[in-house]
Amino acid sequence: MKLYYAPGACSLATHIALNAGDLPHTLEKVDLKAKTTENGADFSAINPKGYVPALELDDGAILTENIAVLSYVGSLMPALFPAEGMARWRTLETLAFISTELHKSFKPLFNPAASEAEKDEAKQTLGKRFALMEQQLGGRDFLIGDGLTVADCYLFVTLFWAREKFGLDLPAGLATYYAALRDHPAVAKALAEEKLG
Amino acid sequence: MKLYYAPGACSLATHIALNAGDLPHTLEKVDLKAKTTENGADFSAINPKGYVPALELDDGAILTENIAVLSYVGSLMPALFPAEGMARWRTLETLAFISTELHKSFKPLFNPAASEAEKDEAKQTLGKRFALMEQQLGGRDFLIGDGLTVADCYLFVTLFWAREKFGLDLPAGLATYYAALRDHPAVAKALAEEKLG
Repeated sequence: MKLYYAPGACSLATHIALNAGDLPHTLEKVDLKAKTTENGADFSAINPKGYVPALELDDGAILTENIAVLSYVGSLMPALFPAEGMARWRTLETLAFISTELHKSFKPLFNPAASEAEKDEAKQTLGKRFALMEQQLGGRDFLIGDGLTVADCYLFVTLFWAREKFGLDLPAGLATYYAALRDHPAVAKALAEEKLG
Repeated sequence: MKLYYAPGACSLATHIALNAGDLPHTLEKVDLKAKTTENGADFSAINPKGYVPALELDDGAILTENIAVLSYVGSLMPALFPAEGMARWRTLETLAFISTELHKSFKPLFNPAASEAEKDEAKQTLGKRFALMEQQLGGRDFLIGDGLTVADCYLFVTLFWAREKFGLDLPAGLATYYAALRDHPAVAKALAEEKLG
């Protein structure tokens, strides 16, 4: 597999999952503005939607959309995505919440043209959504069961943005969870590889 | 199963899928403003996030988030969600795109406080996203393979909003697809049951 990524973008979740599952992969950095890759390829031809992650599978097919890419990687390493029972649906439910309610709520913060009012509203929304995530975590180390899943990989990225891009305060439980995950070998390796150490 | 729904909300996608799969279910309408159901239940106690769809499974568990609920329903009727091979991942990829890129882009149109400029920007974004969906459809009757999947159920809802709530123009291929789906027995039944006929 080859992961097309941009440093610190939501492709970081897939990067962490690939490391955590010890799954053979290569990385190719994408310049999202120029739509070129570090090897000189035209990224628009690889993913016409123009965003990351894009995962090149071993047969050459390109899979996009974070929820689908994380689910695919999880299917190769069931510890990262329970394959059966209610844990399977809770993992997908949590991924969907993180993607549609958390990730999307950052949009005004990433948009230089957004007004201060829009940014303030986004911060308030994020505060409510983080509170729901803290409630789901309930003081445990991981969102689903007793080990790292793709849901943790994706939540980590949103907490990374909150803390390290935008200096937002996190609820205490999430701050503890974030600090612990930052030291997880799969996370530390991905951050170092994306030069975000 | 019991589907908590609001007429014409994105829960309509699950409603169509339940009909298409001929899966035994009951319906309970939710007043999203009052957070009560038509049977007088407190919806905030059923889904603390306060939105639909919420699907009560046969063991009483509540599953939320459209992507997860549609995937669960699809797991009960594999014609609606291919269980194996690349079609499985293309279905999930398409669901994720519809949820995060299409559905979310309607937000300013649903928001009475949004400015005309925000609404115009949303319409332009939707135009681009619908063009991508038309390209994926490529003149076929369904998004994935030769039959209706949960991806069609969800895309239908966004086209319903575009045409019948906001009067947006659709690319010709999507307009044809929309008109044909509107006559699909599972869709027609769901629209009638939600009194949107």
